[in-house]
Amino acid sequence: MAVNHVTSVNLESFASASGLDAIFAPASVAVVGASNRPGSVGRAVFKNILDGNFAGIIYPVNPKTKSVCGVRAYSSLSEIADQVDMAVIIVPAAATLEVAREAAGKGVKGLVVISAGFKETGDAGKALEEELRAICLAHKMRLIGPNCLGLINTDQDIRLNASFARQKAQPGNIAFISQSGALCTAVLDFAAKKNIGFSKFISVGNKADIGELALIRYLHEDPNTKVIMLYVEDLRHGAEFIETVREITGGARPTPILAVKSGRTAEGAAAVSSHTGSLAGSEAVYNALFEQSGVYRVQTVEELFDFALAFATQPLPRSNRIAIITNAGGPGIIATDVTIHAGLQLAELNEATREVLASHLPKAANIHNPIDVIGDARSDRYQVALAAVLNDENVDGVIFILTPQSMTEIEETAAIIPALALRSGKPVVASFMGLLDVSKGVEILEQNGIPHYPFPEGAARAMGALYHYSQWLRRQHLREFELQVDRKRAAAIIKQALDGGLLYLGEVEGNEILEAYGFPVLPSRLATTPEEAAAAVAEFGPCAMKIVSPQVVHKSDVGGVRVGVATGVEAAAAFGAIVDSVRHKIPQAVIQGVFVQQMAAKGVEVILGIKRYPSFGPLIMFGLGGIFVEIFKDVSFRLAPIRRNGARHMIRSIKAFPMLNGARGAAISDQAELERCLLRLSMLATDHPAIAELDINPLIVHEDGQGCSVADCRILLK
Amino acid sequence: MAVNHVTSVNLESFASASGLDAIFAPASVAVVGASNRPGSVGRAVFKNILDGNFAGIIYPVNPKTKSVCGVRAYSSLSEIADQVDMAVIIVPAAATLEVAREAAGKGVKGLVVISAGFKETGDAGKALEEELRAICLAHKMRLIGPNCLGLINTDQDIRLNASFARQKAQPGNIAFISQSGALCTAVLDFAAKKNIGFSKFISVGNKADIGELALIRYLHEDPNTKVIMLYVEDLRHGAEFIETVREITGGARPTPILAVKSGRTAEGAAAVSSHTGSLAGSEAVYNALFEQSGVYRVQTVEELFDFALAFATQPLPRSNRIAIITNAGGPGIIATDVTIHAGLQLAELNEATREVLASHLPKAANIHNPIDVIGDARSDRYQVALAAVLNDENVDGVIFILTPQSMTEIEETAAIIPALALRSGKPVVASFMGLLDVSKGVEILEQNGIPHYPFPEGAARAMGALYHYSQWLRRQHLREFELQVDRKRAAAIIKQALDGGLLYLGEVEGNEILEAYGFPVLPSRLATTPEEAAAAVAEFGPCAMKIVSPQVVHKSDVGGVRVGVATGVEAAAAFGAIVDSVRHKIPQAVIQGVFVQQMAAKGVEVILGIKRYPSFGPLIMFGLGGIFVEIFKDVSFRLAPIRRNGARHMIRSIKAFPMLNGARGAAISDQAELERCLLRLSMLATDHPAIAELDINPLIVHEDGQGCSVADCRILLK
Repeated sequence: MAVNHVTSVNLESFASASGLDAIFAPASVAVVGASNRPGSVGRAVFKNILDGNFAGIIYPVNPKTKSVCGVRAYSSLSEIADQVDMAVIIVPAAATLEVAREAAGKGVKGLVVISAGFKETGDAGKALEEELRAICLAHKMRLIGPNCLGLINTDQDIRLNASFARQKAQPGNIAFISQSGALCTAVLDFAAKKNIGFSKFISVGNKADIGELALIRYLHEDPNTKVIMLYVEDLRHGAEFIETVREITGGARPTPILAVKSGRTAEGAAAVSSHTGSLAGSEAVYNALFEQSGVYRVQTVEELFDFALAFATQPLPRSNRIAIITNAGGPGIIATDVTIHAGLQLAELNEATREVLASHLPKAANIHNPIDVIGDARSDRYQVALAAVLNDENVDGVIFILTPQSMTEIEETAAIIPALALRSGKPVVASFMGLLDVSKGVEILEQNGIPHYPFPEGAARAMGALYHYSQWLRRQHLREFELQVDRKRAAAIIKQALDGGLLYLGEVEGNEILEAYGFPVLPSRLATTPEEAAAAVAEFGPCAMKIVSPQVVHKSDVGGVRVGVATGVEAAAAFGAIVDSVRHKIPQAVIQGVFVQQMAAKGVEVILGIKRYPSFGPLIMFGLGGIFVEIFKDVSFRLAPIRRNGARHMIRSIKAFPMLNGARGAAISDQAELERCLLRLSMLATDHPAIAELDINPLIVHEDGQGCSVADCRILLK
Repeated sequence: MAVNHVTSVNLESFASASGLDAIFAPASVAVVGASNRPGSVGRAVFKNILDGNFAGIIYPVNPKTKSVCGVRAYSSLSEIADQVDMAVIIVPAAATLEVAREAAGKGVKGLVVISAGFKETGDAGKALEEELRAICLAHKMRLIGPNCLGLINTDQDIRLNASFARQKAQPGNIAFISQSGALCTAVLDFAAKKNIGFSKFISVGNKADIGELALIRYLHEDPNTKVIMLYVEDLRHGAEFIETVREITGGARPTPILAVKSGRTAEGAAAVSSHTGSLAGSEAVYNALFEQSGVYRVQTVEELFDFALAFATQPLPRSNRIAIITNAGGPGIIATDVTIHAGLQLAELNEATREVLASHLPKAANIHNPIDVIGDARSDRYQVALAAVLNDENVDGVIFILTPQSMTEIEETAAIIPALALRSGKPVVASFMGLLDVSKGVEILEQNGIPHYPFPEGAARAMGALYHYSQWLRRQHLREFELQVDRKRAAAIIKQALDGGLLYLGEVEGNEILEAYGFPVLPSRLATTPEEAAAAVAEFGPCAMKIVSPQVVHKSDVGGVRVGVATGVEAAAAFGAIVDSVRHKIPQAVIQGVFVQQMAAKGVEVILGIKRYPSFGPLIMFGLGGIFVEIFKDVSFRLAPIRRNGARHMIRSIKAFPMLNGARGAAISDQAELERCLLRLSMLATDHPAIAELDINPLIVHEDGQGCSVADCRILLK
């Protein structure tokens, strides 16, 4: 029986989701390398599929045996008379190519290569992996792995556990994608203990074909998946990832995605020649990537579970006003602290709610938030309190805390939560403190979709994560600016430089490029004689003058800079003095002239920058200049292209933002023009891949309405 | 039988530890309010003592019954013929006073009042509590509570569970002091599940007598206690706490202390009139208190346990060079990230170690740190790797990671760790990932004193905590400065101001006070005529001139300030202009004169401040002036008195410290003189309780060797 819903396969991009049904929902699976040998991976995979009650047909393939686990075995894929949709391959790496070719010939649509011995082992393995990929590409077979644990689909109509994991995955609505096979086994153990279920579970291995982006696309369409958890060591496709995933996490039918990212890319070796280059780095890239695509980055695997549970079961809060219900003061205080720290606030209960609480609760109870039903509360008091706060329109979500005390009705109290929570449409998270005594109550919560945390900190943080994601969904989109740029002119300057072997561009060419992109460049001229310098000052007004010579990098150190040159006479004199000084200090310097540029009006000095990363493209940086960037490293990053929302976010997310917004009685700076500059920078970076690094340092931001001025820039080409 | 080792009791301070043996190690205990009623607290407490196999004698006291749980009951304490060392009281609050008096009459040495209904219920309860305390004080009885869960002493010679906790505490070497009774029950449940044992377990309740400090003193002498865990909502005795606890955590026989502090003190209501006042707050106070006393503040109860386990079982690392051993890449990467983040570094293994690893491990293994023994490792490979890195003198501690894979020998691998770790004298922490499959291995670890964490993050953070504490123990002590101050002169100025009803002191009196304490005050004079102003400028050189009038707060706004007045002629003119301008703008201003002060030389502007807190005394603040304090809030705090180490730490712990240390090619600032200024400030704050708040803003710090200058100050008295 063929998988007739797999019709056309587009493998132009690794990141395509097409054809994945052959892997997740095959009607027939061959296990090449299935084995009877106890402890072997070939046996573990076959047994897992068999024991998992797979809805389709499985064919063990092993030339050395007649049957595997009692199932009739085949000596090769070709020997199988029926259609085979998917093949799991557990043979030595060198033998995989032949199997793959045979599979292609047989019309197999998907491979899961569990075998190791590929890219991870060095150059020979890498060549093998590339060939494997080429075979799949040529024959439109999709491929998971190689070097992976396999995958699990708990869908009740499929029931496919094509992995060698010891522990089974329970059905649920969380999908997990892991770049570490070992972490998969640990996560399955952990989840089994905590009653956490999965929709799909995928170990991606070396990602020769199918990677995270393809899977995210696929899982977004999966009706069983409510939230996606990622464990990632590296990603590819920066711009495509952002563009696609932004829609998946924030579009019409959003799927939340949580990620743990480990591993710091070793790039210390790469030369860095700009401020932006020295401040950026793979952490900045991944933070930008996740933030721009709406992926919630968490710090630990435990947080991944804590948050995923909340996303899998709870609606999002409409805003951040949270009620806390507790039967003990201390835990209420702890929860309050963490609630505030998580960006939430304590809801102010309305009059009616307080009246209801006062009428039902004993006098000693606290009817203000956090609501304390007191240590001797039975379930009835909890019920009254929970119903009352969920009815209050000032409450967006509830943190429910129980400590086991002598009168506490643990199970009865747990039982009242699910129905009330569901009816309200508001998120409720719980902490029944302690593990042993409260375990029966916790089971009731878990089985009825109320996320539970052993301490209130976890509950409050999970609620914070729900709110954080709700803000992403509710973000407003500013109308985009219409910006005119002269792409051809910039390209011509860059080409000319590259043709002349010039990789480092200073102000002269840099300003031209920036001007082509509409940056507010100050009037300037390269003077080659004192007379030209004088004429420029006469035309522009007070100017700065700087030596232009490829041999002079630190211009001030050799007397190569004069500022505040006010008259033509002064300019002619300054020209002579600059040239004399540089000639004296660096006799071999080839002097091209003196750059004469109008002095900028006063304003706040900021720095804008670009650094380009392989497979992620250009990273844009913004920060305040001088000590702010050098000592505080108070900068923000985004991957280009950015939109106006992104530009605004970059500006507002630095700590020193008040300096641009009227702090200490200063005038408000021209933030709209600054947004335009960042957008122009993004266009410049996207349009010209030859720009490896760029610093505009400083850009001077004038008072609101007065614009900005580029005061210095440098560009590194490649 | 009397408790003959309790001889003299000193109740002058709540914080004394004397007499606590009567509570922790009584030979006889009466339970007043013991009951047969199921579910009652009186029954729960009595049963806990009885079931706990108490080493002494228990007497139930209840006039309404002949026996409790089969033990002969007494109608009152007086009816008991024998000596009673300690009484647990579970009667209504109003009845406790009579019981306490009776206990005193009977010679009881310690009370544990479990009853609620005291300070926590309002004024009447507070009065009751004060009377209870007075009775105890008068009769030298020590008191735990009221309003508490009780206490547990697991000492095998005592075995006293005088609490109404449902769950028992297992013996161990962690002491737990909790201000929340409800948290106690949850913590006991949690600990039981995790096989965590306690030496002592104390619910302090309202702390009418015995509080944290007394208990810390007592537990420090307890041979069964290796680490103390605190859950704190508020503390008292700031200076005494620091002085005592610093010795306990960092002295000859150190006991590590870990604390969770919850609850934000409501002090928004208090008026704040200084920069220091607006930046300080209870968080700053508690952070300073913990840091100065060497108490490790953690953020969550889970961390409290995670870290305490490591402290209870492991030696401290000598430095921060950590080896990671893993059988899977992903978890090794996670552990590496968190290790670095926790302030540790990856050890660089020496030649011999790498050679040994290479000779024993398969070729695909990673013999560099993190060491990967590969997924198919059995216990022998782990053993070789662990022994090798523990032998390496470049390794200060080990993080041991296991993920369950098909060949993994979970129990055998667990079994090899304890002996190797013990022999090495280096800390080893483990993460066997997953809960179900690995549980038998985890049990082996737990029972043999190897702290275990479900994910490597927890292991790495715990190792970081050990290292953090080792730094506290190894800190060096700078020789103190010898500073001369004129305490009497400052006291006289303050007294004069207070006598005159003057609470706000500006530069005139402020500078005098600072001068008395040896601060580098600039030469200045209050001029009452233009001639005096001219003479001052002639004498001092260029000066700043400022109006002095109680009615003028914002001097610049009314033309009351001139800077850079260089000559006598200019000074006379400026005097007239200032006075005219102020008279014109604030006609009712009483003008005392014009303050003429030498202009300070250039330097870095910093702010020094004092804010006094009830029961904690003065908090000292330091930060860079202007935007750094206003926008970045980049300041550091310590409670006075500080020593030179503390002053240095305050200066170096702000983010902007590089600004004082030669950043961007600037000169290095005179940090030694700045340290002296902070020490003088500490002395001033400690010597004069009338100083409520003080700002020196700015203090100008000149180049190294050039000292500092006080450029402006204000003092608020009370």
